[in-house]
Amino acid sequence: MSNDFSLQLRSPYLIFMGDVDINPYAKTGLGIVKWCPELVAGQLRFAGNTLDLGVPELTIQQAADFGVNSIVVGVAPIGGNINDRWVAVLVEAAKFGLDIISGLHVRLEDFPSLVSAANNSGAQLISVRTPPAGLPIGNGKKRSGQRVLMVGTDCAVGKKYTALSLTKSLNKLGVKATFRATGQTGIMIAGNGIPIDAVVSDFVSGAAELISPPNHPDHWDVIEGQGSLFNPSYAGVSLGLLHGSQPDAFVVCHDATRTVIDSCPHILLPTISECIDLHVRCGKQTNQDIACIGISVNTSGLPVDQGEAYLRNLSDQTGLICIDSVIDSCDPIAEYLVSKFGSNKHNEGNH
Amino acid sequence: MSNDFSLQLRSPYLIFMGDVDINPYAKTGLGIVKWCPELVAGQLRFAGNTLDLGVPELTIQQAADFGVNSIVVGVAPIGGNINDRWVAVLVEAAKFGLDIISGLHVRLEDFPSLVSAANNSGAQLISVRTPPAGLPIGNGKKRSGQRVLMVGTDCAVGKKYTALSLTKSLNKLGVKATFRATGQTGIMIAGNGIPIDAVVSDFVSGAAELISPPNHPDHWDVIEGQGSLFNPSYAGVSLGLLHGSQPDAFVVCHDATRTVIDSCPHILLPTISECIDLHVRCGKQTNQDIACIGISVNTSGLPVDQGEAYLRNLSDQTGLICIDSVIDSCDPIAEYLVSKFGSNKHNEGNH
Repeated sequence: MSNDFSLQLRSPYLIFMGDVDINPYAKTGLGIVKWCPELVAGQLRFAGNTLDLGVPELTIQQAADFGVNSIVVGVAPIGGNINDRWVAVLVEAAKFGLDIISGLHVRLEDFPSLVSAANNSGAQLISVRTPPAGLPIGNGKKRSGQRVLMVGTDCAVGKKYTALSLTKSLNKLGVKATFRATGQTGIMIAGNGIPIDAVVSDFVSGAAELISPPNHPDHWDVIEGQGSLFNPSYAGVSLGLLHGSQPDAFVVCHDATRTVIDSCPHILLPTISECIDLHVRCGKQTNQDIACIGISVNTSGLPVDQGEAYLRNLSDQTGLICIDSVIDSCDPIAEYLVSKFGSNKHNEGNH
Repeated sequence: MSNDFSLQLRSPYLIFMGDVDINPYAKTGLGIVKWCPELVAGQLRFAGNTLDLGVPELTIQQAADFGVNSIVVGVAPIGGNINDRWVAVLVEAAKFGLDIISGLHVRLEDFPSLVSAANNSGAQLISVRTPPAGLPIGNGKKRSGQRVLMVGTDCAVGKKYTALSLTKSLNKLGVKATFRATGQTGIMIAGNGIPIDAVVSDFVSGAAELISPPNHPDHWDVIEGQGSLFNPSYAGVSLGLLHGSQPDAFVVCHDATRTVIDSCPHILLPTISECIDLHVRCGKQTNQDIACIGISVNTSGLPVDQGEAYLRNLSDQTGLICIDSVIDSCDPIAEYLVSKFGSNKHNEGNH
């Protein structure tokens, strides 16, 4: 990213798993290895932890010798707090000059031994929950380059997953495309980004403008969405992100079995058509040509034999490509994007 | 306000004007005296300052003797910084135990002499730019009481002014109605509130829910709006405020001569109909019965003889009551509100 306002993480990473052996608590570590194995030099687990990321086992000393630049806390501690044994590992890493990267609620700065070790070695203590200071107000001006934003009928419907998958599909087609992260796990995967929901509300669209800076005319930013225009808990974040991203295209993400808003179960989920329509309407404020290019549905909650029919039916109703991005790839959406917007296939790298 | 999350200011106020004698820089002081003269015990100006709020001249000593509880910085210093002479006045006030209330960019905590005086006397240093800590996520649940929100075709189109004027008109009709502040000058006038645009984006609708807490079924909260759904710099703030306010009714505020968005002059202003329609559509997410009840237009930019015709024409087009809230009162809108929603005229006070 070509500005000073984005968090910048230094790979290669050593992923720290401690004693956490439950998959949902290790989503960060699992996600980084799944989407960016090339960033990961190894894992560090406490003896007896059977959750294996399938990467080399490294001590701090070995990681430092190997040229690892950061240790990433890849798990959420059960209960939320970290104990002395965890802190001791992080202190040792800091002594070796490794940056400490954390998405924990607990602040790394609150551990004096860690602060002192980092100060001595020059290691950075980085929270991917903390946005950079000095963010600007959004200006709504058109930027060069092209952008596709993931949006949702609600929160937690696969926006990050779809963005990563679509980036991969576009790159496979030879299209220059970069995943742009707006949440903490996404930032660890991308190595940069801004946690948009932690930004002061006046600066949300300004932050979104920085997340997808001006770029080559044939380059696509694939932007991780947050929240939903229809979720009254977080819709402000979503609208600021939509305006600041000024997307040319968007993908609607949806969970096939969700009927009510996650955080507000008394509120019905919008229909897909309502969702498309409101995004077009609001998105036009910064990009007149905004268009929906596909729907990414999580069908895992449906009976096994109904997923395909659901997608086919939805596609008939909307006239759009509908996929399950976990089961299928995003290739059909990527191909449609190329056919609709031109096929500048000069992949000179991801950035 | 019945919760701990709102700023709480202690009147009576002494309004500090320093050496600022230019009206636009003294909007805060002028606004407080205009809308809440009963909160103001007096003014403190440097010798030679000819800008007069029309309230008694008081020294700090006199103010303290009089029972003043807070000194309010009623002006914006030209250039933005405050000099030693200003600080000396605030330090003296703090020594007498007066809270210091400021909407300045400069932080009161950055002046050690002020911090020390406040610590010794127990005076509070209060920035109306700083939201309270620990705000919740919005839950979108229906609250008791009724709410009317000011919205705009853009920023700076008279939302605060209209809210204050409408509150006055409702009270005059015997309707229980409370002005709810979401910006710094509004907070100084109301004596409480939350500066919504300074809230972290994830908590905007949650803050809005606290600003207009549950109330008597026949009580109206008249909520100051912020930004505009159509202004890409601030629309996220506006949507969070709309969802959290769950208004039964809204008033569209508009400037008759504005043609483009204030902070984004390459973007056209929406039509009034577009503005009403998008607010109904988004507002329905937390209140199915949301309705526009009137339009408040600033016509001061039009030739003198065209204002009335403009309002008449707009009223014909929209079928709604259209007023200039500076020239007219908001009485016609208040009367319509009562006729539409019932006339529970049991005014037991403002809160």
